[in-house]
Amino acid sequence: MKSFNKKEIKGLDKIYRLNLINSVSGYKSANLIGTKSESGENLAIFSSVVHLGANPALLGFIMRPASVPRNTLTNMKETKSFTINAVSEDMMEKAHYTSANFEIGTSEFSACKLTPEYLGNGEAPFVKESKLKIAMHLEQIIDIELNDTMLVIGSIETVYVDEVALTSNGQLDLNAISTVAISGLNRYHQVQEIANYPYARTTELPEF
Amino acid sequence: MKSFNKKEIKGLDKIYRLNLINSVSGYKSANLIGTKSESGENLAIFSSVVHLGANPALLGFIMRPASVPRNTLTNMKETKSFTINAVSEDMMEKAHYTSANFEIGTSEFSACKLTPEYLGNGEAPFVKESKLKIAMHLEQIIDIELNDTMLVIGSIETVYVDEVALTSNGQLDLNAISTVAISGLNRYHQVQEIANYPYARTTELPEF
Repeated sequence: MKSFNKKEIKGLDKIYRLNLINSVSGYKSANLIGTKSESGENLAIFSSVVHLGANPALLGFIMRPASVPRNTLTNMKETKSFTINAVSEDMMEKAHYTSANFEIGTSEFSACKLTPEYLGNGEAPFVKESKLKIAMHLEQIIDIELNDTMLVIGSIETVYVDEVALTSNGQLDLNAISTVAISGLNRYHQVQEIANYPYARTTELPEF
Repeated sequence: MKSFNKKEIKGLDKIYRLNLINSVSGYKSANLIGTKSESGENLAIFSSVVHLGANPALLGFIMRPASVPRNTLTNMKETKSFTINAVSEDMMEKAHYTSANFEIGTSEFSACKLTPEYLGNGEAPFVKESKLKIAMHLEQIIDIELNDTMLVIGSIETVYVDEVALTSNGQLDLNAISTVAISGLNRYHQVQEIANYPYARTTELPEF
């Protein structure tokens, strides 16, 4: 085992540290977040979307420091509306490049050749190419003072999912729609289910 | 596309809703969180560990309502110490069953046949079988009042990682240590890297 303690981590080259610390949490979700304001449409990839609760249905994600302009944040605050679009294998390269620092006024949709789509009565654009997309209503932004980031919390307005992924008990088969996983900042992964365990009960433990 | 709006989601059977809403965020990390107090060792699987920042190196995870006894929370508050241990394929079934509602006083380590290990000067036990483990110091617990959950934030004290996963630029090759991904509440997945893209620059966009 190689170890890195707090002091060693602090002393690492910046890029090495970014790569290492972004990797240690394990595999991450790959989602494009779509927003819109009067100045145009915006699309950005996030690997921090996390489940907060099923009833009410809430999701959250982490936003980086507000010290640089963040269109996603500005637009969300203005319209209270955003979309979360699962990234599948056939669009992952385009999705990755939405993270480039485009000039204000440039839509990542057109720069990365993804198609904006409007569904329902939300104001924010979906990604047409995505096979699992969620209309979200902005509920709350919680400041994380420790490092000047934010936990953005939204409630689910509508879930749109390709029927091939929907199973009889509500579990989604994300393999069926080629959803990818991310590790670190750069690595994209194909995923293959290997087990579907029942709800764990102390009276039904398997023989380990 | 099949759609579920807010009202339809609220009207779903509880298990179906849990399965669906736990699935929509995409693939999730699989980590065991270890804690200890005078009453003993505790181990629980979490799929919500998320990267918060690299400098200072911070990770967070979501905890469910405090209305039921949660040893992990009590122990963390007492000792300010916990460990995060990546779940690999050879231990994923044992890891899943740590979520069973064992009686207070029963260690999930012994019930699920995982081995507690003490490294460095932290008070919390690691999982010996894990190939990527992190000693954490509890920094802050942020209440999420919308649904009575919590964002638990810790700073990284030490990262321990099997050398086979460490690449020259600090990126971890999680495939090499068979780290698994979770979807929904029950599904475990094998993961295979398919792309490693460079840092995205507007001046270096590929031909899409």
